[in-house]
Amino acid sequence: LADPAASDALVARASAIETAFKAVTATVAGLATRQFDPEFAAFAADRLRSALGVEIARERFDAAWNRPLDLVALQAEAVVRVFARLVGEAGDRARNALVEGEPATEVIARWGFHAIDISACADGRVAGLLDHVLRVPAPVVTARRSYAGAMFPVAETLGQWERVELRRLREGRPNPAGAGTRYLKIGVYHYSSRDPRHEGCAAHGSDDARAAGLLLGRLEDFAAAVERRHGAGDGVALLLVGLDTDTDAIRVHVPGPDGRIDTDRFVSSLELHTRTAALSREAAKQEVRAAVAEAAGTAQDDPATEGMRWFCGYLLKNNIAQVEAVRSRFGGAYPEAGHDEKLIVIGDPVDDVQLRNLAFQAQMASVEEGAGDLVVGLRILATRLSPQGLAVPVLILRAYDPEIPGDEERAASAALAMRAAVAARHAGASRGLRVLPVAAVRAAEGGPLRIISPDCSSAGQGCDCGGRHA
Amino acid sequence: LADPAASDALVARASAIETAFKAVTATVAGLATRQFDPEFAAFAADRLRSALGVEIARERFDAAWNRPLDLVALQAEAVVRVFARLVGEAGDRARNALVEGEPATEVIARWGFHAIDISACADGRVAGLLDHVLRVPAPVVTARRSYAGAMFPVAETLGQWERVELRRLREGRPNPAGAGTRYLKIGVYHYSSRDPRHEGCAAHGSDDARAAGLLLGRLEDFAAAVERRHGAGDGVALLLVGLDTDTDAIRVHVPGPDGRIDTDRFVSSLELHTRTAALSREAAKQEVRAAVAEAAGTAQDDPATEGMRWFCGYLLKNNIAQVEAVRSRFGGAYPEAGHDEKLIVIGDPVDDVQLRNLAFQAQMASVEEGAGDLVVGLRILATRLSPQGLAVPVLILRAYDPEIPGDEERAASAALAMRAAVAARHAGASRGLRVLPVAAVRAAEGGPLRIISPDCSSAGQGCDCGGRHA
Repeated sequence: LADPAASDALVARASAIETAFKAVTATVAGLATRQFDPEFAAFAADRLRSALGVEIARERFDAAWNRPLDLVALQAEAVVRVFARLVGEAGDRARNALVEGEPATEVIARWGFHAIDISACADGRVAGLLDHVLRVPAPVVTARRSYAGAMFPVAETLGQWERVELRRLREGRPNPAGAGTRYLKIGVYHYSSRDPRHEGCAAHGSDDARAAGLLLGRLEDFAAAVERRHGAGDGVALLLVGLDTDTDAIRVHVPGPDGRIDTDRFVSSLELHTRTAALSREAAKQEVRAAVAEAAGTAQDDPATEGMRWFCGYLLKNNIAQVEAVRSRFGGAYPEAGHDEKLIVIGDPVDDVQLRNLAFQAQMASVEEGAGDLVVGLRILATRLSPQGLAVPVLILRAYDPEIPGDEERAASAALAMRAAVAARHAGASRGLRVLPVAAVRAAEGGPLRIISPDCSSAGQGCDCGGRHA
Repeated sequence: LADPAASDALVARASAIETAFKAVTATVAGLATRQFDPEFAAFAADRLRSALGVEIARERFDAAWNRPLDLVALQAEAVVRVFARLVGEAGDRARNALVEGEPATEVIARWGFHAIDISACADGRVAGLLDHVLRVPAPVVTARRSYAGAMFPVAETLGQWERVELRRLREGRPNPAGAGTRYLKIGVYHYSSRDPRHEGCAAHGSDDARAAGLLLGRLEDFAAAVERRHGAGDGVALLLVGLDTDTDAIRVHVPGPDGRIDTDRFVSSLELHTRTAALSREAAKQEVRAAVAEAAGTAQDDPATEGMRWFCGYLLKNNIAQVEAVRSRFGGAYPEAGHDEKLIVIGDPVDDVQLRNLAFQAQMASVEEGAGDLVVGLRILATRLSPQGLAVPVLILRAYDPEIPGDEERAASAALAMRAAVAARHAGASRGLRVLPVAAVRAAEGGPLRIISPDCSSAGQGCDCGGRHA
């Protein structure tokens, strides 16, 4: 079931992303000795454009002997801008992708679902979840939001369910409300096969039984809320998935015929990888089907569980290719079990660029509400960056709905308020920790990020607003 | 159209509320000289219970010569607790009230609506809007949220529209989606007839043309958002109302036959009060109907605008009674044009206790997001309280849905995070401003407030959680 063509494409994309970030420090460091040269500002702006593909207004590079450039801040900002560039370049690449040759909505409906909503951990080692680990095209995923320990807020997910249901009732999209399909909510916890007690999920004390158990409880709470508020609990399907951040292998906790999930009952892609390695593609797929049915405790032709089993098999088959890719590239597991995130992303989700250890990403509507998750992220990145004298880059991204008048301005204000909150909480270089927050907005349906600055009323302060915030 | 029985009941309730707050300062001041007496803690707790009807754990009153009671904080906390008591006592008083002898949902449907959603200004002089000014029973109002200048966020109101619509589609409540009724969004701005340039809406620079114009724009933005996102703009009705905070008179900007609202075209209840004073009840009602039809620019028997005109007439008729009540009690206008709020309420709305100048109330999900509105409120209250050496009491109220597992804990955490944010922003007595934030949660459908404290893990620190936050 290895899929070398797909894996090669993923590796190529991963290498391009890694190369882009590696260039940042060398490029910025190279500016240090030349900052007092005549014409330096133009030179520096050109250099960042040519080496990193990012635009920073040349006024930002006006240095003098008594006002040298803040290269630490510049390096962190360049990291955020490289990330923003990669997101912009990813564009609509995956937005219209097919799933095994078919439109996503049709395949999803055949699995028996009309929406697939994933909550994962904010941990950066999970940041390749969609493209690499699960290999699901973007249109398959209705919503993906991350929280420390994957502990999503039930009320917010209920709101997401309500929005999906309203669209089905009013517009029959993606299918009419009476179609008999379900809303699938997936929770993804993670663990470390190499160093289970230290490199698992920090939010759950690196205890994977606890991580799985608490997340399962949260999933059940969501189904209970839909039942109690709308009497529609049977329109919700739940799935629990575990991710080994060392090998990218997954555990799929296939639900039983009654929908019940057991934290101890799952199909391991690592085992299936071994068992299917020597088999033909068709025999391997049959092996996956048999394992899923066994875990579900049903026959392979049980019609009631068919869609969910089919979907679980799809995830496992995809993931076996990723296990093989990690194995062939690194000899079994990633060389580094720990963290290597480039930046922190808070606010609304961004999934266009996917890579293990790319970003610690936690969704929140305000720093006040999400401070707990942000602190976890800062601790993780600062442990590595602070000793190197680097600042932690924090991208604050807020999405807006272009259909709502004034919503872009509202998102910009909210992003700037979060930026100010991050700055206020981490003012100065307290305990060696330096944080560089950058605010940006983006249309909810995707497209380029627009970086905004509170100083944008004065020209050339790094705001891409084109004078709109002046 | 004066309704002396209703007015007398409102005045009696208003007096009870005023008396309850007046007792606070005297009661707390009376504790100062006795705080080092033996048995003082028990005495003080008894005193607050008997004089103010509030419970504060006796451990809070353990004073010593080197650790005297913080009576300023105690006074502010007692204000919040008296407010909480009044809310608790209001109970379900109005929840099942009839509108002119009929169930609210039936009357609302006959006006052609299925939901009535009001946004008003956070200004405390508007705090009697529902009971006194408009005299609408609680079941008539689907949602009421306040913001500085009444400038409600469109995205949030769109979410409220979507929730209402989902319930109609799924449950046929309050009526089925195809019933042809509309969602009525009302915006209430305010002005001062006595001192128009100083005592109008602070958020709009005391400029009532600006207040009305910007609010009308926001209402139209909301209708546009419903149209663009759901193609259902014709299911939205808009209404603009102005409130004179000196006389409680209103201006109803009756929409034309095309739904258009003009800031210059309105019916004034003050004028109608004069014109109807000598008329019989039936003749007065006819006068109101004629004035409404004239403002709408339609015949009095125009069927297309009938429901909206009927509703506007209902508001005007009710308000004429209030104009008469203010006139007969105070001789035309309130003796004090300015602010006299007892406290600030932020977070989710509370409408159970209604009184002019009771509370500056601004809705927000976080202090980070609502800081602008909170600053307006603090400036208003501190101007009066700080010179008296008093702290500004701030109640942070978050609502929870008892049907969502864990939602009460989420609301409690959110309230405590907001409390911490208020405390952090106004730490110390900067520029003479002292703020006392108190956090509380409440079930969304109503009932008593539960005050919570960040210190509740230690017994008796003022948290009503019964050990649940320990």
